[in-house]
Amino acid sequence: MNDVRGAATDIVTAAILVIGDEILSGRTKDKNIGYIAEYMTNIGIDVREVRIVPDIEEEIVTALDALRRRYTYVFTTGGIGPTHDDITADCVAKAFGVSIDVDPRARAMLLTRIAEKDLNEARLRMARIPAGADLIVNKVSSAPGFRIGNVHVMAGVPSIMQAMLDEVAPTLKTGVKLLSESVRANLREGDIGGPLGAIAKAHPDVMIGSYPFQDEGRPNTNVVIRSRDPQKLAAAKAAVEAMLNEVRAGLRQTA
Amino acid sequence: MNDVRGAATDIVTAAILVIGDEILSGRTKDKNIGYIAEYMTNIGIDVREVRIVPDIEEEIVTALDALRRRYTYVFTTGGIGPTHDDITADCVAKAFGVSIDVDPRARAMLLTRIAEKDLNEARLRMARIPAGADLIVNKVSSAPGFRIGNVHVMAGVPSIMQAMLDEVAPTLKTGVKLLSESVRANLREGDIGGPLGAIAKAHPDVMIGSYPFQDEGRPNTNVVIRSRDPQKLAAAKAAVEAMLNEVRAGLRQTA
Repeated sequence: MNDVRGAATDIVTAAILVIGDEILSGRTKDKNIGYIAEYMTNIGIDVREVRIVPDIEEEIVTALDALRRRYTYVFTTGGIGPTHDDITADCVAKAFGVSIDVDPRARAMLLTRIAEKDLNEARLRMARIPAGADLIVNKVSSAPGFRIGNVHVMAGVPSIMQAMLDEVAPTLKTGVKLLSESVRANLREGDIGGPLGAIAKAHPDVMIGSYPFQDEGRPNTNVVIRSRDPQKLAAAKAAVEAMLNEVRAGLRQTA
Repeated sequence: MNDVRGAATDIVTAAILVIGDEILSGRTKDKNIGYIAEYMTNIGIDVREVRIVPDIEEEIVTALDALRRRYTYVFTTGGIGPTHDDITADCVAKAFGVSIDVDPRARAMLLTRIAEKDLNEARLRMARIPAGADLIVNKVSSAPGFRIGNVHVMAGVPSIMQAMLDEVAPTLKTGVKLLSESVRANLREGDIGGPLGAIAKAHPDVMIGSYPFQDEGRPNTNVVIRSRDPQKLAAAKAAVEAMLNEVRAGLRQTA
Protein backbone atom coordinates (compact mmCIF):
# COMPACT_ATOMS: atom_id res chain seq x y z
CA MET A 1 0.00 0.00 0.00
CA ASN A 2 2.98 2.33 0.46
CA ASP A 3 3.22 2.87 -3.26
CA VAL A 4 -0.39 3.89 -3.50
CA ARG A 5 0.11 6.51 -0.86
CA GLY A 6 3.19 7.73 -2.71
CA ALA A 7 6.82 7.85 -1.77
CA ALA A 8 7.53 10.63 -4.21
CA THR A 9 8.86 14.01 -3.17
CA ASP A 10 5.52 15.62 -3.87
CA ILE A 11 3.99 13.87 -0.85
CA VAL A 12 4.01 15.88 2.36
CA THR A 13 3.42 13.91 5.56
CA ALA A 14 2.65 14.80 9.14
CA ALA A 15 2.22 13.29 12.58
CA ILE A 16 0.24 14.57 15.54
CA LEU A 17 1.57 14.26 19.09
CA VAL A 18 -1.01 14.87 21.80
CA ILE A 19 0.55 15.48 25.22
CA GLY A 20 -1.52 15.11 28.33
CA ASP A 21 -2.51 12.88 31.22
CA GLU A 22 -6.03 14.27 31.04
CA ILE A 23 -6.57 12.75 27.59
CA LEU A 24 -5.13 9.36 28.60
CA SER A 25 -7.30 9.26 31.73
CA GLY A 26 -10.39 9.92 29.62
CA ARG A 27 -11.29 12.91 31.77
CA THR A 28 -10.90 15.21 28.78
CA LYS A 29 -11.97 13.95 25.36
CA ASP A 30 -9.56 15.00 22.62
CA LYS A 31 -11.01 17.33 20.00
CA ASN A 32 -7.78 18.26 18.28
CA ILE A 33 -6.78 15.09 16.42
CA GLY A 34 -9.83 14.99 14.15
CA TYR A 35 -9.65 18.73 13.57
CA ILE A 36 -5.97 18.74 12.60
CA ALA A 37 -6.35 15.58 10.49
CA GLU A 38 -9.21 17.03 8.45
CA TYR A 39 -7.43 20.38 8.13
CA MET A 40 -4.24 18.73 6.82
CA THR A 41 -6.12 16.52 4.35
CA ASN A 42 -7.81 19.63 2.99
CA ILE A 43 -4.50 21.41 2.34
CA GLY A 44 -2.71 18.41 0.84
CA ILE A 45 -0.76 17.04 3.80
CA ASP A 46 -1.15 13.37 4.79
CA VAL A 47 -1.38 12.65 8.52
CA ARG A 48 0.33 9.26 8.82
CA GLU A 49 0.49 8.72 12.57
CA VAL A 50 -0.87 10.02 15.85
CA ARG A 51 0.45 9.39 19.33
CA ILE A 52 -0.93 10.39 22.72
CA VAL A 53 1.60 10.38 25.57
CA PRO A 54 1.50 11.34 29.25
CA ASP A 55 3.12 14.38 30.92
CA ILE A 56 6.42 12.54 31.37
CA GLU A 57 9.59 14.05 29.91
CA GLU A 58 11.11 10.82 28.66
CA GLU A 59 7.90 9.77 26.92
CA ILE A 60 7.45 13.12 25.22
CA VAL A 61 11.07 13.34 24.05
CA THR A 62 11.10 9.77 22.74
CA ALA A 63 7.83 10.15 20.82
CA LEU A 64 8.84 13.53 19.44
CA ASP A 65 12.17 12.21 18.21
CA ALA A 66 10.56 9.20 16.55
CA LEU A 67 7.97 11.33 14.76
CA ARG A 68 10.07 14.32 13.73
CA ARG A 69 12.65 12.09 12.04
CA ARG A 70 10.01 10.22 10.08
CA TYR A 71 7.49 12.77 8.84
CA THR A 72 7.69 16.12 7.07
CA TYR A 73 5.92 17.87 9.94
CA VAL A 74 4.94 17.19 13.53
CA PHE A 75 2.13 19.03 15.32
CA THR A 76 1.98 18.81 19.09
CA THR A 77 -0.93 19.88 21.28
CA GLY A 78 -0.97 20.48 25.01
CA GLY A 79 1.40 21.21 27.86
CA ILE A 80 2.34 24.83 27.13
CA GLY A 81 0.43 26.55 29.95
CA PRO A 82 1.67 28.26 33.12
CA THR A 83 1.65 25.37 35.61
CA HIS A 84 4.20 22.81 36.78
CA ASP A 85 2.65 20.05 34.65
CA ASP A 86 3.23 22.05 31.44
CA ILE A 87 6.56 20.61 30.35
CA THR A 88 6.22 20.45 26.55
CA ALA A 89 8.51 23.40 25.74
CA ASP A 90 11.30 22.02 27.93
CA CYS A 91 10.91 18.58 26.34
CA VAL A 92 11.09 20.02 22.84
CA ALA A 93 14.26 21.94 23.74
CA LYS A 94 15.74 18.72 25.09
CA ALA A 95 14.79 16.76 21.95
CA PHE A 96 16.49 19.37 19.76
CA GLY A 97 19.43 19.76 22.11
CA VAL A 98 19.00 23.53 22.50
CA SER A 99 18.68 25.79 25.52
CA ILE A 100 15.38 27.26 26.70
CA ASP A 101 14.66 30.52 28.47
CA VAL A 102 12.14 33.33 28.66
CA ASP A 103 11.99 34.76 25.15
CA PRO A 104 11.75 38.59 25.02
CA ARG A 105 9.39 38.40 22.01
CA ALA A 106 7.07 35.99 23.84
CA ARG A 107 7.25 38.09 27.02
CA ALA A 108 6.25 41.17 25.03
CA MET A 109 3.32 39.24 23.56
CA LEU A 110 2.11 38.24 27.01
CA LEU A 111 2.30 41.89 28.11
CA THR A 112 -0.17 42.90 25.40
CA ARG A 113 -2.90 41.29 27.54
CA ILE A 114 -1.39 40.78 30.98
CA ALA A 115 -0.47 43.71 33.24
CA GLU A 116 3.23 43.76 34.18
CA LYS A 117 2.36 43.32 37.89
CA ASP A 118 0.46 40.10 37.04
CA LEU A 119 3.33 38.66 34.99
CA ASN A 120 4.43 36.29 37.74
CA GLU A 121 6.81 33.38 37.41
CA ALA A 122 4.01 30.99 36.48
CA ARG A 123 2.80 33.16 33.58
CA LEU A 124 6.39 33.72 32.48
CA ARG A 125 6.63 29.96 31.95
CA MET A 126 4.43 30.56 28.89
CA ALA A 127 7.22 32.73 27.44
CA ARG A 128 9.84 29.99 27.79
CA ILE A 129 10.77 29.19 24.19
CA PRO A 130 13.59 26.93 22.92
CA ALA A 131 16.50 28.81 21.37
CA GLY A 132 16.10 29.30 17.62
CA ALA A 133 12.33 28.74 17.55
CA ASP A 134 9.86 30.97 15.73
CA LEU A 135 6.77 32.07 17.63
CA ILE A 136 3.28 31.08 16.56
CA VAL A 137 1.11 34.05 17.38
CA ASN A 138 -2.63 33.61 17.53
CA LYS A 139 -5.74 35.73 17.87
CA VAL A 140 -7.27 33.96 20.88
CA SER A 141 -4.52 33.86 23.51
CA SER A 142 -1.51 36.10 24.16
CA ALA A 143 0.61 33.03 24.94
CA PRO A 144 2.35 31.93 21.74
CA GLY A 145 3.07 28.50 20.36
CA PHE A 146 6.32 27.98 18.52
CA ARG A 147 7.96 26.21 15.61
CA ILE A 148 11.41 24.67 15.74
CA GLY A 149 12.72 22.57 12.89
CA ASN A 150 9.75 20.65 11.53
CA VAL A 151 7.89 20.64 14.86
CA HIS A 152 4.94 22.94 15.58
CA VAL A 153 4.08 23.25 19.25
CA MET A 154 0.51 24.30 19.91
CA ALA A 155 -1.91 24.72 22.80
CA GLY A 156 -4.24 21.96 23.96
CA VAL A 157 -7.32 24.19 24.34
CA PRO A 158 -9.12 23.63 21.01
CA SER A 159 -10.03 27.28 20.30
CA ILE A 160 -6.40 28.36 20.80
CA MET A 161 -5.00 25.37 18.89
CA GLN A 162 -7.29 26.16 15.97
CA ALA A 163 -6.19 29.81 15.90
CA MET A 164 -2.55 28.68 15.93
CA LEU A 165 -3.16 26.23 13.11
CA ASP A 166 -4.57 29.06 11.00
CA GLU A 167 -1.31 30.94 11.51
CA VAL A 168 0.84 27.90 10.76
CA ALA A 169 -0.97 26.60 7.67
CA PRO A 170 0.20 29.26 5.17
CA THR A 171 3.84 28.51 6.12
CA LEU A 172 3.60 24.81 5.30
CA LYS A 173 4.79 23.12 2.17
CA THR A 174 1.84 21.22 0.79
CA GLY A 175 1.78 18.24 -1.50
CA VAL A 176 -0.43 17.00 -4.27
CA LYS A 177 -3.78 16.76 -2.56
CA LEU A 178 -5.25 13.37 -1.94
CA LEU A 179 -8.63 13.63 -3.64
CA SER A 180 -11.53 11.60 -2.35
CA GLU A 181 -14.98 10.51 -3.42
CA SER A 182 -17.55 8.86 -1.22
CA VAL A 183 -20.23 6.55 -2.63
CA ARG A 184 -23.18 5.35 -0.55
CA ALA A 185 -23.55 1.68 -1.39
CA ASN A 186 -27.08 1.02 -0.11
CA LEU A 187 -25.74 -2.49 0.49
CA ARG A 188 -24.25 -4.30 3.43
CA GLU A 189 -20.48 -4.39 3.58
CA GLY A 190 -20.44 -8.18 3.38
CA ASP A 191 -22.36 -8.08 0.08
CA ILE A 192 -19.69 -6.05 -1.69
CA GLY A 193 -16.46 -7.22 -0.03
CA GLY A 194 -15.49 -9.65 -2.79
CA PRO A 195 -16.00 -7.45 -5.87
CA LEU A 196 -14.70 -4.36 -4.04
CA GLY A 197 -11.44 -6.16 -3.29
CA ALA A 198 -11.14 -7.04 -6.97
CA ILE A 199 -11.63 -3.39 -7.94
CA ALA A 200 -9.01 -2.34 -5.39
CA LYS A 201 -6.57 -4.79 -6.95
CA ALA A 202 -7.35 -3.55 -10.47
CA HIS A 203 -6.78 0.08 -9.49
CA PRO A 204 -3.39 0.07 -7.77
CA ASP A 205 -2.96 3.86 -7.68
CA VAL A 206 -6.22 4.30 -5.84
CA MET A 207 -7.02 3.58 -2.18
CA ILE A 208 -10.45 2.16 -1.55
CA GLY A 209 -11.92 2.02 1.93
CA SER A 210 -15.20 0.52 3.05
CA TYR A 211 -16.99 1.95 6.07
CA PRO A 212 -20.13 0.37 7.48
CA PHE A 213 -22.67 2.58 9.24
CA GLN A 214 -26.19 2.35 10.59
CA ASP A 215 -28.52 4.12 8.18
CA GLU A 216 -31.72 4.82 10.12
CA GLY A 217 -31.29 1.50 11.87
CA ARG A 218 -30.35 -0.49 8.76
CA PRO A 219 -26.80 -1.54 7.88
CA ASN A 220 -25.33 0.47 5.03
CA THR A 221 -21.83 1.14 3.70
CA ASN A 222 -19.87 4.12 2.47
CA VAL A 223 -17.17 3.34 -0.05
CA VAL A 224 -14.45 5.97 -0.01
CA ILE A 225 -12.12 6.18 -3.00
CA ARG A 226 -8.92 8.22 -2.75
CA SER A 227 -6.21 9.13 -5.21
CA ARG A 228 -3.93 12.02 -6.10
CA ASP A 229 -4.81 11.53 -9.76
CA PRO A 230 -8.29 12.82 -10.70
CA GLN A 231 -8.59 10.55 -13.76
CA LYS A 232 -7.65 7.41 -11.86
CA LEU A 233 -10.04 8.46 -9.11
CA ALA A 234 -12.88 8.90 -11.63
CA ALA A 235 -12.15 5.51 -13.23
CA ALA A 236 -12.18 3.72 -9.88
CA LYS A 237 -15.36 5.50 -8.83
CA ALA A 238 -17.07 4.44 -12.06
CA ALA A 239 -15.97 0.85 -11.47
CA VAL A 240 -17.33 0.94 -7.92
CA GLU A 241 -20.65 2.38 -9.05
CA ALA A 242 -21.03 -0.20 -11.82
CA MET A 243 -20.23 -2.98 -9.34
CA LEU A 244 -22.76 -1.63 -6.83
CA ASN A 245 -25.48 -1.54 -9.50
CA GLU A 246 -24.67 -5.11 -10.46
CA VAL A 247 -24.73 -6.40 -6.88
CA ARG A 248 -28.02 -4.59 -6.17
CA ALA A 249 -29.56 -6.05 -9.32
CA GLY A 250 -28.34 -9.53 -8.36
CA LEU A 251 -29.85 -9.24 -4.88
CA ARG A 252 -33.21 -8.05 -6.31
CA GLN A 253 -33.29 -11.14 -8.54
CA THR A 254 -32.63 -13.54 -5.68
CA ALA A 255 -34.99 -11.70 -3.28
CA MET B 1 7.00 11.41 37.58
CA ASN B 2 7.35 7.69 36.91
CA ASP B 3 7.49 6.95 40.60
CA VAL B 4 4.28 8.84 41.27
CA ARG B 5 2.52 6.78 38.66
CA GLY B 6 3.96 3.66 40.22
CA ALA B 7 6.24 1.00 38.88
CA ALA B 8 4.99 -1.52 41.41
CA THR B 9 3.41 -4.79 40.44
CA ASP B 10 0.01 -3.54 41.54
CA ILE B 11 -0.09 -1.12 38.63
CA VAL B 12 -1.82 -2.40 35.50
CA THR B 13 -1.15 -0.49 32.30
CA ALA B 14 -2.67 -0.41 28.84
CA ALA B 15 -2.22 1.09 25.41
CA ILE B 16 -4.79 1.73 22.70
CA LEU B 17 -3.98 1.15 19.03
CA VAL B 18 -6.47 2.68 16.61
CA ILE B 19 -6.18 1.28 13.09
CA GLY B 20 -7.63 3.16 10.18
CA ASP B 21 -6.99 5.52 7.30
CA GLU B 22 -10.40 7.09 7.87
CA ILE B 23 -9.36 8.38 11.30
CA LEU B 24 -6.03 9.74 10.02
CA SER B 25 -7.74 11.49 7.11
CA GLY B 26 -10.14 13.18 9.53
CA ARG B 27 -13.12 11.82 7.61
CA THR B 28 -14.23 9.83 10.66
CA LYS B 29 -13.74 11.34 14.11
CA ASP B 30 -12.56 8.74 16.62
CA LYS B 31 -14.96 8.08 19.48
CA ASN B 32 -13.23 5.03 20.91
CA ILE B 33 -10.09 6.46 22.53
CA GLY B 34 -11.90 8.61 25.10
CA TYR B 35 -14.40 5.85 25.80
CA ILE B 36 -11.77 3.15 26.41
CA ALA B 37 -9.57 5.55 28.41
CA GLU B 38 -12.38 6.50 30.77
CA TYR B 39 -13.52 2.89 31.07
CA MET B 40 -10.01 1.70 31.99
CA THR B 41 -9.50 4.48 34.53
CA ASN B 42 -12.75 3.48 36.19
CA ILE B 43 -11.68 -0.16 36.59
CA GLY B 44 -8.14 0.58 37.78
CA ILE B 45 -6.11 0.27 34.59
CA ASP B 46 -3.86 3.14 33.48
CA VAL B 47 -3.85 3.94 29.77
CA ARG B 48 -0.28 5.09 29.15
CA GLU B 49 -0.13 5.51 25.39
CA VAL B 50 -2.32 5.72 22.31
CA ARG B 51 -1.29 5.36 18.69
CA ILE B 52 -3.29 5.79 15.51
CA VAL B 53 -1.83 4.11 12.43
CA PRO B 54 -2.93 3.66 8.80
CA ASP B 55 -4.16 0.46 7.12
CA ILE B 56 -0.60 -0.61 6.27
CA GLU B 57 0.63 -3.98 7.47
CA GLU B 58 4.13 -2.88 8.43
CA GLU B 59 2.83 0.08 10.43
CA ILE B 60 0.28 -2.01 12.31
CA VAL B 61 2.73 -4.80 13.13
CA THR B 62 5.45 -2.39 14.29
CA ALA B 63 3.11 -0.40 16.52
CA LEU B 64 1.51 -3.53 17.95
CA ASP B 65 4.89 -5.05 18.80
CA ALA B 66 6.08 -1.86 20.48
CA LEU B 67 2.95 -1.56 22.58
CA ARG B 68 2.37 -5.19 23.55
CA ARG B 69 5.90 -5.54 24.87
CA ARG B 70 5.62 -2.44 26.99
CA TYR B 71 2.15 -2.47 28.59
CA THR B 72 0.07 -5.01 30.45
CA TYR B 73 -2.69 -4.85 27.85
CA VAL B 74 -3.23 -3.54 24.36
CA PHE B 75 -6.65 -2.72 22.92
CA THR B 76 -6.96 -2.31 19.18
CA THR B 77 -9.94 -0.89 17.33
CA GLY B 78 -10.77 -1.11 13.64
CA GLY B 79 -9.95 -3.19 10.61
CA ILE B 80 -11.82 -6.42 11.37
CA GLY B 81 -14.66 -6.12 8.85
CA PRO B 82 -15.33 -8.10 5.64
CA THR B 83 -13.52 -5.95 3.05
CA HIS B 84 -10.03 -5.95 1.54
CA ASP B 85 -8.93 -3.00 3.69
CA ASP B 86 -9.64 -4.94 6.90
CA ILE B 87 -6.19 -6.36 7.61
CA THR B 88 -5.94 -6.18 11.41
CA ALA B 89 -6.40 -9.90 12.12
CA ASP B 90 -3.69 -10.85 9.61
CA CYS B 91 -1.34 -8.25 11.07
CA VAL B 92 -1.91 -9.51 14.62
CA ALA B 93 -1.19 -13.08 13.49
CA LYS B 94 2.01 -11.84 11.87
CA ALA B 95 3.06 -9.92 15.00
CA PHE B 96 2.57 -13.04 17.11
CA GLY B 97 4.11 -15.34 14.48
CA VAL B 98 1.07 -17.62 14.31
CA SER B 99 -1.06 -18.85 11.43
CA ILE B 100 -4.50 -17.47 10.64
CA ASP B 101 -7.50 -19.15 9.08
CA VAL B 102 -11.29 -19.31 9.25
CA ASP B 103 -12.08 -20.34 12.83
CA PRO B 104 -14.98 -22.82 13.14
CA ARG B 105 -16.20 -21.13 16.34
CA ALA B 106 -16.24 -17.72 14.66
CA ARG B 107 -17.91 -19.18 11.56
CA ALA B 108 -20.63 -20.67 13.78
CA MET B 109 -21.13 -17.29 15.44
CA LEU B 110 -21.59 -15.58 12.07
CA LEU B 111 -24.17 -18.20 11.11
CA THR B 112 -26.34 -17.24 14.09
CA ARG B 113 -27.28 -14.08 12.18
CA ILE B 114 -26.20 -14.66 8.60
CA ALA B 115 -27.89 -17.25 6.37
CA GLU B 116 -25.46 -19.90 5.08
CA LYS B 117 -26.11 -18.81 1.47
CA ASP B 118 -25.03 -15.25 2.37
CA LEU B 119 -21.82 -16.39 4.05
CA ASN B 120 -19.64 -15.44 1.11
CA GLU B 121 -15.86 -15.14 1.07
CA ALA B 122 -16.00 -11.51 2.18
CA ARG B 123 -18.10 -12.28 5.27
CA LEU B 124 -15.91 -15.28 6.03
CA ARG B 125 -13.00 -12.85 6.37
CA MET B 126 -14.64 -11.83 9.65
CA ALA B 127 -14.13 -15.39 10.92
CA ARG B 128 -10.39 -15.34 10.20
CA ILE B 129 -8.82 -15.61 13.66
CA PRO B 130 -5.15 -16.10 14.56
CA ALA B 131 -4.33 -19.57 15.91
CA GLY B 132 -4.60 -19.75 19.68
CA ALA B 133 -6.79 -16.70 20.12
CA ASP B 134 -9.93 -16.57 22.27
CA LEU B 135 -13.01 -15.03 20.71
CA ILE B 136 -14.62 -11.89 22.07
CA VAL B 137 -18.33 -12.37 21.59
CA ASN B 138 -20.62 -9.37 21.79
CA LYS B 139 -24.31 -8.59 21.84
CA VAL B 140 -24.39 -6.15 18.94
CA SER B 141 -22.68 -7.94 16.05
CA SER B 142 -22.26 -11.61 15.19
CA ALA B 143 -18.67 -10.97 14.10
CA PRO B 144 -16.38 -11.60 17.05
CA GLY B 145 -13.30 -9.77 18.22
CA PHE B 146 -10.47 -11.82 19.69
CA ARG B 147 -7.81 -11.89 22.35
CA ILE B 148 -4.34 -13.28 21.82
CA GLY B 149 -1.64 -12.88 24.44
CA ASN B 150 -2.19 -9.48 26.01
CA VAL B 151 -3.78 -7.99 22.89
CA HIS B 152 -7.53 -7.45 22.55
CA VAL B 153 -8.71 -6.91 19.00
CA MET B 154 -12.00 -5.06 18.75
CA ALA B 155 -14.25 -3.49 16.12
CA GLY B 156 -14.01 0.15 15.07
CA VAL B 157 -17.75 0.82 15.10
CA PRO B 158 -18.28 2.36 18.55
CA SER B 159 -21.44 0.44 19.51
CA ILE B 160 -19.76 -2.89 18.69
CA MET B 161 -16.47 -1.91 20.34
CA GLN B 162 -18.34 -0.93 23.51
CA ALA B 163 -20.18 -4.26 23.61
CA MET B 164 -16.86 -6.08 23.17
CA LEU B 165 -15.25 -4.05 25.94
CA ASP B 166 -18.05 -5.08 28.30
CA GLU B 167 -17.19 -8.71 27.55
CA VAL B 168 -13.45 -8.16 27.95
CA ALA B 169 -13.47 -6.09 31.15
CA PRO B 170 -14.32 -8.89 33.62
CA THR B 171 -11.37 -10.94 32.31
CA LEU B 172 -8.79 -8.22 32.98
CA LYS B 173 -6.45 -8.02 35.91
CA THR B 174 -7.01 -4.62 37.49
CA GLY B 175 -4.68 -2.62 39.66
CA VAL B 176 -5.05 -0.29 42.57
CA LYS B 177 -7.36 2.33 41.19
CA LEU B 178 -6.01 5.78 40.57
CA LEU B 179 -8.40 7.96 42.60
CA SER B 180 -9.06 11.49 41.50
CA GLU B 181 -10.58 14.68 42.86
CA SER B 182 -11.37 17.76 40.85
CA VAL B 183 -11.41 21.25 42.41
CA ARG B 184 -12.78 24.27 40.57
CA ALA B 185 -10.33 27.05 41.30
CA ASN B 186 -12.40 30.10 40.35
CA LEU B 187 -9.05 31.61 39.48
CA ARG B 188 -7.00 31.93 36.34
CA GLU B 189 -4.32 29.30 35.81
CA GLY B 190 -1.56 31.91 35.87
CA ASP B 191 -2.65 33.07 39.35
CA ILE B 192 -2.09 29.66 40.92
CA GLY B 193 0.81 28.23 38.91
CA GLY B 194 3.49 29.12 41.47
CA PRO B 195 1.86 27.82 44.67
CA LEU B 196 0.36 24.82 42.84
CA GLY B 197 3.83 23.77 41.71
CA ALA B 198 5.02 24.03 45.33
CA ILE B 199 2.16 21.79 46.47
CA ALA B 200 2.98 19.27 43.73
CA LYS B 201 6.57 19.17 44.94
CA ALA B 202 5.48 18.72 48.58
CA HIS B 203 3.17 15.81 47.68
CA PRO B 204 5.36 13.46 45.65
CA ASP B 205 2.90 10.52 45.70
CA VAL B 206 0.18 12.62 44.17
CA MET B 207 -0.21 13.85 40.59
CA ILE B 208 -1.60 17.32 40.24
CA GLY B 209 -2.85 18.63 36.91
CA SER B 210 -4.15 22.06 36.05
CA TYR B 211 -6.69 22.48 33.26
CA PRO B 212 -7.87 25.89 32.09
CA PHE B 213 -11.36 26.26 30.69
CA GLN B 214 -13.76 29.00 29.66
CA ASP B 215 -16.42 29.33 32.37
CA GLU B 216 -19.31 31.21 30.76
CA GLY B 217 -16.80 33.29 28.84
CA ARG B 218 -14.42 33.89 31.76
CA PRO B 219 -11.14 32.03 32.27
CA ASN B 220 -11.29 29.46 35.05
CA THR B 221 -9.23 26.42 36.06
CA ASN B 222 -9.90 22.88 37.21
CA VAL B 223 -7.24 21.39 39.43
CA VAL B 224 -7.25 17.60 39.22
CA ILE B 225 -5.51 15.68 41.99
CA ARG B 226 -4.80 11.96 41.51
CA SER B 227 -3.32 9.28 43.73
CA ARG B 228 -3.73 5.61 44.54
CA ASP B 229 -3.65 6.44 48.25
CA PRO B 230 -6.90 8.00 49.57
CA GLN B 231 -5.18 9.69 52.54
CA LYS B 232 -2.47 11.27 50.44
CA LEU B 233 -5.13 12.35 47.97
CA ALA B 234 -7.16 14.01 50.76
CA ALA B 235 -4.08 15.76 52.15
CA ALA B 236 -3.12 17.15 48.76
CA LYS B 237 -6.69 18.23 48.08
CA ALA B 238 -6.81 20.09 51.41
CA ALA B 239 -3.54 21.82 50.58
CA VAL B 240 -4.87 22.85 47.17
CA GLU B 241 -8.10 24.20 48.67
CA ALA B 242 -6.26 26.16 51.36
CA MET B 243 -3.94 27.61 48.71
CA LEU B 244 -6.88 28.58 46.49
CA ASN B 245 -8.59 30.38 49.42
CA GLU B 246 -5.37 32.23 50.16
CA VAL B 247 -4.83 33.31 46.55
CA ARG B 248 -8.46 34.44 46.25
CA ALA B 249 -8.18 36.46 49.49
CA GLY B 250 -4.94 38.02 48.26
CA LEU B 251 -6.52 39.03 44.95
CA ARG B 252 -9.54 40.58 46.75
CA GLN B 253 -7.17 42.70 48.89
CA THR B 254 -5.25 44.00 45.91
CA ALA B 255 -8.41 44.58 43.88
